[in-house]
Amino acid sequence: MGGGKLPVVGIVSGTGREGSALALRLAQSGFRVVVGSRSAERAAEKAHDLATVLRSVGLSPTLTGAANPEVVRTVDLVLLSVPFAHVLETARQLPFRPGSVVVDTSVPVVFNAGKAEFVEVKAGSVTEELRAVIPADVNLVGAFKTIPARILGDIDSDLDCDVFVCGDSDEAKNSVLQLAHNVSDLRPVDAGPLSAARTLERMAALAIQLNLRYRVKSARFRVVGL
Amino acid sequence: MGGGKLPVVGIVSGTGREGSALALRLAQSGFRVVVGSRSAERAAEKAHDLATVLRSVGLSPTLTGAANPEVVRTVDLVLLSVPFAHVLETARQLPFRPGSVVVDTSVPVVFNAGKAEFVEVKAGSVTEELRAVIPADVNLVGAFKTIPARILGDIDSDLDCDVFVCGDSDEAKNSVLQLAHNVSDLRPVDAGPLSAARTLERMAALAIQLNLRYRVKSARFRVVGL
Repeated sequence: MGGGKLPVVGIVSGTGREGSALALRLAQSGFRVVVGSRSAERAAEKAHDLATVLRSVGLSPTLTGAANPEVVRTVDLVLLSVPFAHVLETARQLPFRPGSVVVDTSVPVVFNAGKAEFVEVKAGSVTEELRAVIPADVNLVGAFKTIPARILGDIDSDLDCDVFVCGDSDEAKNSVLQLAHNVSDLRPVDAGPLSAARTLERMAALAIQLNLRYRVKSARFRVVGL
Repeated sequence: MGGGKLPVVGIVSGTGREGSALALRLAQSGFRVVVGSRSAERAAEKAHDLATVLRSVGLSPTLTGAANPEVVRTVDLVLLSVPFAHVLETARQLPFRPGSVVVDTSVPVVFNAGKAEFVEVKAGSVTEELRAVIPADVNLVGAFKTIPARILGDIDSDLDCDVFVCGDSDEAKNSVLQLAHNVSDLRPVDAGPLSAARTLERMAALAIQLNLRYRVKSARFRVVGL
C-alpha cells in the first residue's frame, strides 16, 4: 500500500448486523468505508454512528453512507452483507460496476426453534447462485463467511482467526486476500475456486451450531500447520 | 478411566497409511490397539512394527493384529480406515458386532494430475452412505476426517488441533469424544448429527488442498473461541 491510504470498500446492507460489524472493523483498519442501505438517510446515520464509536477510541475514520445502488455504481470493491433470504433478489436489482469486485459473505442458515439449520442450496452454495445473477463482467468472490458478526463488530476483541477467500478470478481473489491482510489479527487463506464456497458456507453453519451447543458466542476457525 | 487401562480399539485397514498412523497415535496414548488387515499375517507384522517404534521411545504398547472380520467381530470400538474407493464394499462384507461403535474416518477425495478433487457423494457424505450399508444395530460415528495421517503418525509432533465428531447416537458419539480426549494435544469437538459428516468431509478436502496450495504437509483445523 506504499504508506498511502487503503482502498475504498463499499458495503451493501452495511446497516445490518453483519454489515455494520464489517464496516466498523474495516474502518478501524484504515479503509475508507461506504455504508450502503436501501435508504441513503439510514446509511448516513449508521456511518455517523460507527464513526463516533471509532473516534471515541482516538481513530479518525472515513465512513460515509449511500443508497445501495449508489455504492455498487461507484465503488470497485464491494461486500454484500445482505441476509441470506434476500441476497439473490437484492443482487439482481443492483447496477454493479463492470470490472468491480463483489464479495459475498452470506451463509445459508435459518434459525428454527433455537436451532441453526443449514439450508441446502441448489447451486451448491449461495455464492454460486449469485454467480448466475450477477453480470459476467463483475468479479465475484466469497469471503468472511466463517467470522461471526459479533466479534467483527467488537473492536476491543482480537479476531485471531483465518478468513477463507474463494473465487475463480485470481486477481479479484488477491484483492480480497490483500484486504484481509490489512485487518489486524486476521490471516487471509486462499480457499480455492468459487465452488469452495460450498465448504465455507457449511463451516460457517458449523461455527454457528457450535456457538449454540457449547454456549459460546464467537466460534471461528484457524488452520493449524499453515 | 479411573486409572485403569484404556479400552481396546480396533482399526479396519490398520496397515494402510491412515490406519497405521491412527494405530500408532492411539497405542502411544495408552489404548490397546488391534490392527486389522485383509491378511491376518500382514496385520500381525504391522502391529509388531508399530510396537517396535513405540518401544524405541520407552513405551510399552499393547498392539496386536487380526484379520478385519475378526476385528469387527470382537472389538466394541472400531475405526474404519479403508480408502474411500473401497470403504462401502468393505463395510458391506464385514460382520459388525451388534451394539458396537464404528467410526468412519474416510474422505471423498481423489488425486488427479497433482490436484485433490472432492468427490460429491450422492448421500451427501461417505458416512451417510455407510449408514445405509451397516446394520442398524451398529452405531456409526464420523470422526478423525480432518486430521492428516502424516501428523497422526509422527509421534514426535503435537497434534495441536480439534477432532470433529458427528453421529446420531449421543452415547456412541460420547465414546468417541472420550477416546479423542485421551489423545494428547487433541481437543474433541461435538460437530452434531451424522449429517455433519458433509461438512467434515469438505473441510478435510480443503485441508488437503491447502497442503498442496501452500506447500505444507499437515494443515488441520482448530476452532477459536471455544
